[in-house]
Amino acid sequence: MSGNGNLNAEDPESITVPLISGNNRCAFNNSSQDWRSRGSVHVFQYIFMKWFSCFLVGIIVGLIGFFNNLAVENIAGVKFVITSNMMLQQRYWLAFAVFFSYNLALTLFASTITALVAPAAAGSGIPEVKAYLNGVDAPGIFSLRTLIVKIVGSISAVSSSSNWKGRAHDRRDLITCGSAAGIAVSFRSPVGGLLFALEEMASWWRGALLWRAFFTTAVIAIVLRALIDFCLSGKCGLFGTGGLIMFDVYSSNMSYHLEDVPPVLVLAFVGGILGSIYNFILTKVLRIYNLINEKGIIYKVLLACSISIFTSFLLFGLPWLASCRPCPSDASEACPTLEGRYGVVVPAGLFVPVIVTGATYGRFVGMLVGSHTNLHHGLYAVLGAASLLGGTMRMTVSLCVIILELTNNLLLLPLIMLVLLVSKTTADTFNSNIYDLIMKAKGFPYLEAHAEPYMRQLTVSDVVTGPLQLFNGIEKVGNIVHVLRSTGHNGFPFSSEDFAKRGSGNGDKIEDIELTEEEMEMYIDLHPFTNASPYTVVETMSLAKALILFRQVGLRHLLVIPTMSSRSPVVGILTRHDFIPEHIFSLHPMLVSSRWKRLRFRLPPSSK
Amino acid sequence: MSGNGNLNAEDPESITVPLISGNNRCAFNNSSQDWRSRGSVHVFQYIFMKWFSCFLVGIIVGLIGFFNNLAVENIAGVKFVITSNMMLQQRYWLAFAVFFSYNLALTLFASTITALVAPAAAGSGIPEVKAYLNGVDAPGIFSLRTLIVKIVGSISAVSSSSNWKGRAHDRRDLITCGSAAGIAVSFRSPVGGLLFALEEMASWWRGALLWRAFFTTAVIAIVLRALIDFCLSGKCGLFGTGGLIMFDVYSSNMSYHLEDVPPVLVLAFVGGILGSIYNFILTKVLRIYNLINEKGIIYKVLLACSISIFTSFLLFGLPWLASCRPCPSDASEACPTLEGRYGVVVPAGLFVPVIVTGATYGRFVGMLVGSHTNLHHGLYAVLGAASLLGGTMRMTVSLCVIILELTNNLLLLPLIMLVLLVSKTTADTFNSNIYDLIMKAKGFPYLEAHAEPYMRQLTVSDVVTGPLQLFNGIEKVGNIVHVLRSTGHNGFPFSSEDFAKRGSGNGDKIEDIELTEEEMEMYIDLHPFTNASPYTVVETMSLAKALILFRQVGLRHLLVIPTMSSRSPVVGILTRHDFIPEHIFSLHPMLVSSRWKRLRFRLPPSSK
Repeated sequence: MSGNGNLNAEDPESITVPLISGNNRCAFNNSSQDWRSRGSVHVFQYIFMKWFSCFLVGIIVGLIGFFNNLAVENIAGVKFVITSNMMLQQRYWLAFAVFFSYNLALTLFASTITALVAPAAAGSGIPEVKAYLNGVDAPGIFSLRTLIVKIVGSISAVSSSSNWKGRAHDRRDLITCGSAAGIAVSFRSPVGGLLFALEEMASWWRGALLWRAFFTTAVIAIVLRALIDFCLSGKCGLFGTGGLIMFDVYSSNMSYHLEDVPPVLVLAFVGGILGSIYNFILTKVLRIYNLINEKGIIYKVLLACSISIFTSFLLFGLPWLASCRPCPSDASEACPTLEGRYGVVVPAGLFVPVIVTGATYGRFVGMLVGSHTNLHHGLYAVLGAASLLGGTMRMTVSLCVIILELTNNLLLLPLIMLVLLVSKTTADTFNSNIYDLIMKAKGFPYLEAHAEPYMRQLTVSDVVTGPLQLFNGIEKVGNIVHVLRSTGHNGFPFSSEDFAKRGSGNGDKIEDIELTEEEMEMYIDLHPFTNASPYTVVETMSLAKALILFRQVGLRHLLVIPTMSSRSPVVGILTRHDFIPEHIFSLHPMLVSSRWKRLRFRLPPSSK
Repeated sequence: MSGNGNLNAEDPESITVPLISGNNRCAFNNSSQDWRSRGSVHVFQYIFMKWFSCFLVGIIVGLIGFFNNLAVENIAGVKFVITSNMMLQQRYWLAFAVFFSYNLALTLFASTITALVAPAAAGSGIPEVKAYLNGVDAPGIFSLRTLIVKIVGSISAVSSSSNWKGRAHDRRDLITCGSAAGIAVSFRSPVGGLLFALEEMASWWRGALLWRAFFTTAVIAIVLRALIDFCLSGKCGLFGTGGLIMFDVYSSNMSYHLEDVPPVLVLAFVGGILGSIYNFILTKVLRIYNLINEKGIIYKVLLACSISIFTSFLLFGLPWLASCRPCPSDASEACPTLEGRYGVVVPAGLFVPVIVTGATYGRFVGMLVGSHTNLHHGLYAVLGAASLLGGTMRMTVSLCVIILELTNNLLLLPLIMLVLLVSKTTADTFNSNIYDLIMKAKGFPYLEAHAEPYMRQLTVSDVVTGPLQLFNGIEKVGNIVHVLRSTGHNGFPFSSEDFAKRGSGNGDKIEDIELTEEEMEMYIDLHPFTNASPYTVVETMSLAKALILFRQVGLRHLLVIPTMSSRSPVVGILTRHDFIPEHIFSLHPMLVSSRWKRLRFRLPPSSK
């Protein structure tokens, strides 16, 4: 009997090939196979496993993040100490040689490992997770990256009775929790990480998900706090002595007034423009990188190394470009020294470059404004980082909380909100946020939450394509195998133990199932594996309306039924593919012009 | 032509009585009447008005909240100063008389006004907003309370061309933004208010809504900051000189270690139990109050006054119960004096009693633990408030952020997350959160996001009730009027300018429309007003699955169609009422026992 939740009403991945034959109305009481009716022990076990998975994700991500952090701070710290000592001895060329080869060796190691072992691990990872949570389940979208989640998932599945298999639903929830955990540990920002996962990544919100993600990030916060507490005793090498707050900019005498607002507005506006330019350039650069990377592993490694060499020259040369200033002797805080924390922040990817660049930009604006403002340069740096983050990431609440958690300064909140508001609005008029641009560049069929206006002019029958393969309630195995082999679709009514997808996503192929001639001639009763009540739309429904249903309920297949009784009980099946603008435009080319006419007036876009 | 967005695919309130007649497939191109196709000027105007409404809500709620705050702090402050001065002169009985009559006079004024002018304004208001945002659109659910929103809505609607009418969708978004603004201004916690509205109140999440609510609360933050800046110069009477942070508990030398965790865990656990007891008692007390209030206006006023008298005695008597302690002379901070800020915090309702009680409870635990902990009593008070909030409100992220914004102490974050986690989990095993309990007591048909297990054992045809009224495509006016008058439903296909609901919700009744005998004999073509593509489910679909669709897409009506072609093209229409457990149990009494069997195992509930 099926245990895979295929007949589960909540499961958005349930298979929806109908068997509308004469006896379908009484064929199958689908609730009898549902996990929820299996008895209270199983229900308790299921709920326990869901929470235990989140707990494990919190612990494991917290530990990995911390040790990652520890390793990076020590590796980078050693480099910095060696190089600095050489420079203090005036041995600049030797210092550069050490700096240069240290960087190159690390890059060579990382890029070779990535290229050989796990090509999918390259890049930010956030676009992949976002696409997955939207329902894009392309094979290989994860590999090394979701290792943790998969390990946890396997542990959970094995440690419970073998009956428990994560439903698609649960898998997605766990990955949302895992991504919240990842951001939380990267920035030591538990609430910010949680909000980031919900605002930027998750396509489906649910109260239960929020609560579970909160649980995960709370575990992270507690684990991190305990480990940092441990490190305070000096057992972690060069690892910083700071607590959860990375950049503590608290100053109780900080105040600002109305006259400080105009320069901040200008800073935010320009930051938004810079952010959209950054997004534009990044996608172009990524396109060039992709072209190079496609040529082979050697090219991949060479590309990474040349970037490393370029960066080494730039970093080492920087102090010669701008003259160093002596530390002001009357400063209230101690000047940064070799013993102090150095700014190698761990979370690689898109965040740190933007924060560092933005802070530099903000400080520059602060210096330009000079004595015309009450705000300290350091606060301008925070606002500059906020404006560039707003201009590239285009998030609001989560960025706000991340910045607050990074800087521990709630007094800045109104200014940060103002800056994010202006920079996001400005940047949104030019292009999309960085993750959406990368997703588009990678070709993920991401499904937007809102319908484009031209979708209102189409009905579902305008986009649904055939021909449809229908099975009888009791069908010859040979026929089924033939259809499965000759079509590319995957919405098939198999979920028995023999046919079920194993693992999490990259299931077995029909070619892997070996059947004898004798078996091919046998008949199989498909009723037990059939979804007797799929989600349906009438063929006259507007495409926009069907998209809302498809996206809100999180479906993978949507049946189109005729308004009038006709020969076939089903007109066709809508999949994600049918809602993708490129597909629709290929079917209805005349829509392209009307689309652009509309887009010109989307100045303040109504979606994130 | 219809301008009310009735045919709009995104509009969850669109009317769904179908006209499945022979020519319905080509009867009506519904996108031609859609506002989006009206031309770019209108689209721009529409988008502008949506944002301008949010801006106005931010400004107006910010101003009202601030002046409310100002008034309360001055009125309560004057009382406090007069009473204290009398007590310093040892004139205790006179002081009590002033205190007593001051309180009684204010209560008398407030309760009389409420009882006479706006009975719906009584109470917290949050349950009403939550119910409304869930789709409960009972007449009179708002009155004085949504005045602001309505004023803003009207201003917007009038100032734009008369074509713009807020769709149900937009109205709901604006109310979400307004409620975020309300919480934000009450606690001077912009991000917390926003998250509260999203976590607790909104039934439908959308990226666009988050961004618009962020805009509103950012306006609030800026308005509040400017007004408080103005008050710093001492022009606001007794209004405090504090900034946005209400209770600044920042202390940079605060630290805590592993041994501090066990007492905090106990505090959180007991706080959770206390919270659920609080919820239980509150619902009982509210029931008694309701019984008294039903007897008439005099009883209402008498009830309020006796509560005021009781409270006056309690407050005034408190210092005699516990002896006052002298202010420690070595304290780093100044002792509170008459000149200092006094703790009359504005937002009445459920929040403040819980915060104050919880802080007292936490301080008490802190004193019990005594020297066994590194944590300061003040921090225990914050954690105690968090535990009781978690135990009554059962929110996570928003409470976390509100507490952080109130106290300006991010170092406490891991402990606060831990406390919320434990107290919410503990309290959830006993009863629901306070707002849900009040909603239930008020009888709002709130629709949960998740399906109960017994709903999987039912199909939609098990709950849908008839008989169904069908109209022909071209129908006699008299017939339509007869049906409208003889049924209680409101899902009718009228949306022309003549029949349209005016204002926001409390529309005209059929009885108010006067038609002559001649008009009654005429025929009307209903096709232009018809929703040609309603959302549908097949009659064999499980009720759980239909609920997911109904709730996720935010429908008001859902058509049930037969699996086999039969005499009628539609089996029935599902409304909110059909998904309410009480209704289902009345139809299928045998489910009640199985329901409780399941509930026993809901220990860690999977929903908020």
